[in-house]
Amino acid sequence: MSQDTIKTIRVDEDRLWQRLMEMAKIGASQKGGCNRQALTSVDQQGRALFIQWCEAAGCTVRWDTIGNIFARRPGHNNDLPAVITGSHLDTQPTGGKFDGVYGVLAGLEVIETLNDHQVETEHPLDVVVWTNEEGARFSPAMMGSGVFSNTFDLDETLKITDKAGISVGEALQLTGFSGCDSNRPTAIKASFEAHIEQGPILEAEQKQIGVVSGIQGMRWYDLSIHGQPVHAGPTPMETRRDPFMGLTAICDQLYQLAETHAPWARVTFGDIKALPGVRNTVPETLVLAVDLRHPDQAILDKMDSEFRAIAKQQAARFELTTEIRDEWNLPAVSFSKDCVTTVEAAVDELGYEYMPMFSGAGHDSGYIAKVAPTSMIFVPCEKGISHNEAENAKQEDLAAGCNVLLHSMLKMAKC
Amino acid sequence: MSQDTIKTIRVDEDRLWQRLMEMAKIGASQKGGCNRQALTSVDQQGRALFIQWCEAAGCTVRWDTIGNIFARRPGHNNDLPAVITGSHLDTQPTGGKFDGVYGVLAGLEVIETLNDHQVETEHPLDVVVWTNEEGARFSPAMMGSGVFSNTFDLDETLKITDKAGISVGEALQLTGFSGCDSNRPTAIKASFEAHIEQGPILEAEQKQIGVVSGIQGMRWYDLSIHGQPVHAGPTPMETRRDPFMGLTAICDQLYQLAETHAPWARVTFGDIKALPGVRNTVPETLVLAVDLRHPDQAILDKMDSEFRAIAKQQAARFELTTEIRDEWNLPAVSFSKDCVTTVEAAVDELGYEYMPMFSGAGHDSGYIAKVAPTSMIFVPCEKGISHNEAENAKQEDLAAGCNVLLHSMLKMAKC
Repeated sequence: MSQDTIKTIRVDEDRLWQRLMEMAKIGASQKGGCNRQALTSVDQQGRALFIQWCEAAGCTVRWDTIGNIFARRPGHNNDLPAVITGSHLDTQPTGGKFDGVYGVLAGLEVIETLNDHQVETEHPLDVVVWTNEEGARFSPAMMGSGVFSNTFDLDETLKITDKAGISVGEALQLTGFSGCDSNRPTAIKASFEAHIEQGPILEAEQKQIGVVSGIQGMRWYDLSIHGQPVHAGPTPMETRRDPFMGLTAICDQLYQLAETHAPWARVTFGDIKALPGVRNTVPETLVLAVDLRHPDQAILDKMDSEFRAIAKQQAARFELTTEIRDEWNLPAVSFSKDCVTTVEAAVDELGYEYMPMFSGAGHDSGYIAKVAPTSMIFVPCEKGISHNEAENAKQEDLAAGCNVLLHSMLKMAKC
Repeated sequence: MSQDTIKTIRVDEDRLWQRLMEMAKIGASQKGGCNRQALTSVDQQGRALFIQWCEAAGCTVRWDTIGNIFARRPGHNNDLPAVITGSHLDTQPTGGKFDGVYGVLAGLEVIETLNDHQVETEHPLDVVVWTNEEGARFSPAMMGSGVFSNTFDLDETLKITDKAGISVGEALQLTGFSGCDSNRPTAIKASFEAHIEQGPILEAEQKQIGVVSGIQGMRWYDLSIHGQPVHAGPTPMETRRDPFMGLTAICDQLYQLAETHAPWARVTFGDIKALPGVRNTVPETLVLAVDLRHPDQAILDKMDSEFRAIAKQQAARFELTTEIRDEWNLPAVSFSKDCVTTVEAAVDELGYEYMPMFSGAGHDSGYIAKVAPTSMIFVPCEKGISHNEAENAKQEDLAAGCNVLLHSMLKMAKC
């Protein structure tokens, strides 16, 4: 088949959509979403359905010690490193139909399309289901890709338990997904992941494709602001050491910090607690959850030190003290230039409207990028809503993303 | 006895202090404070000790239907309206030795001093123990003075229960303090209450006496700020509807409002809650407890409408909505000019350093002022700390306040 003919191949939009809807029935929630948490019996059913489809498409399906599933379509030369794609089938407790699932079934759709057109690639292909991306049942999130990339220790991870005391290891045994690490691809040429954006940018910019060049770095903190608990009535304003005065000044400055590093800096306060939290008493302490993000690690590091300076300086203005507890630190990920350029070339040929972007959320690809050249393809989702039963995406956008995935993989896998 | 001789009479500083320390043993806490909640068996013991002292001082002691105790020292003409003084013996669960108790025992010390010097007054005198000022066991606070002043309905009040389900009526029966309303003074010429300041102003200004001309009005609100819960990562800052942005602007403006109405305006945020309160999600809603105070009701009313306007305007800047729930509204109290002038004249003659001031906390006198000419006398307490086992005051300051009370009462009761 000529390269020109190959360039005209498109995925089957309806088949992809029907499979998404079929998978959504497993663990379907009343409000139209899904509750298919990692390694539960419904996740087991979802995995079984995926395996059935892959085998029907001629793939060999195996899994590793942490339950990551690899569905292989052989290449012309299976000694060459694999070109892989995938995402996750597990969902949040009140999750949607597309987060993760789309990336897995888009991979399957690529294989089916290649079968339909009898296209053989030089390199073998793998469609991967990464175990427990959501971290809803077992913490931390991105567990399967974390173990695969040696970010997490396997033995330690297997011991992690859910709220009922069942360990990851036990859940893998119970569901039949405790496999062998020799089932993993021995070498990876490139890894792609298609995903809904989980943000509102593509929709707002009216772009069908986001060419993702990396994942925001993220730092989580608990900022405690300590003052003096005094009675609301008798205590003059000017003698107070009121943590709310510090909070007001600190939040204001941190929002300015986000502006300084616009458009990619993110500053979020997700939670706050007042101690003792009595209506007519100035709080002794406020504890604020602070989430800072930026795709450029150097800028995130700068934001980190500016945050610490702001907290200290602003607190001092009101004779308050602060304490910062580091809760999580996920460095920024820059995807492989090769992979990003390949996606860009594919989308250019396909003629879709697109924009370069960063991922604001964490993804399995963030960990995979540590061990293989990686990038991601985003498609719009309705109003940017995700981790929500109302999650929605358009069939044509999902197909567009899948076509970009197909031609990115073909460029890497050669035919 | 000549008026000039009478002016030289002073209270017995040591006796007052010893009685305070004696009373503090009843319900004494390990950290040096008191837990003597209203109508408990320890409160009953405290009341019994007070009655014993009063009877030894020649008083007739009776109580009304809500357990307010009246210890009467007859005057030359008992048909004249009484000059009364008093406060409360009940404490917070982790209360101090002086809050309330000082006002009661200062009243007793006035009577003892008059006995010592064989001074007879024209008007009869009453030392009053108001029931359940603190509201710690039975809510609301200032219950006895509230019923006395017809602010609260007696029957409804008697039905109020504590956490164990015991009603006020039952507790009055159990402790033997269910009396008769005919035991109340039929008419009141003037009411005075000596109290520790419960704030830091007198100490800071190095004044021994605060001549209190009223009680701050107070309004409590729950301000809800509603936005849109979105993921911390993918959502650009400029498309967010972040309640924390509204909070920052609203708090800032409300602190400015306090400055506009300085020095007496108070703006306090005692508690805050984020919903859903998830670290990596912009909250859907913040609920902020707002406490506004001012001694001038007209200014407090202005602050109320300015608060509403600020909340609305600032929220609109960030496309947020707000909701204000009124939690409590206690109008400002202006004490009787006659009583305030009398206290001022007494303190002037005694030569103490003093300043005019308002009370920032609520007191029984706030309700008594509705039915009788009333004012209060404040003395410093250490660092303004109150409602705390560490509450402390100087013997000489307590004596000074008691001398002011003595001579204020003498001016009103005539001799």
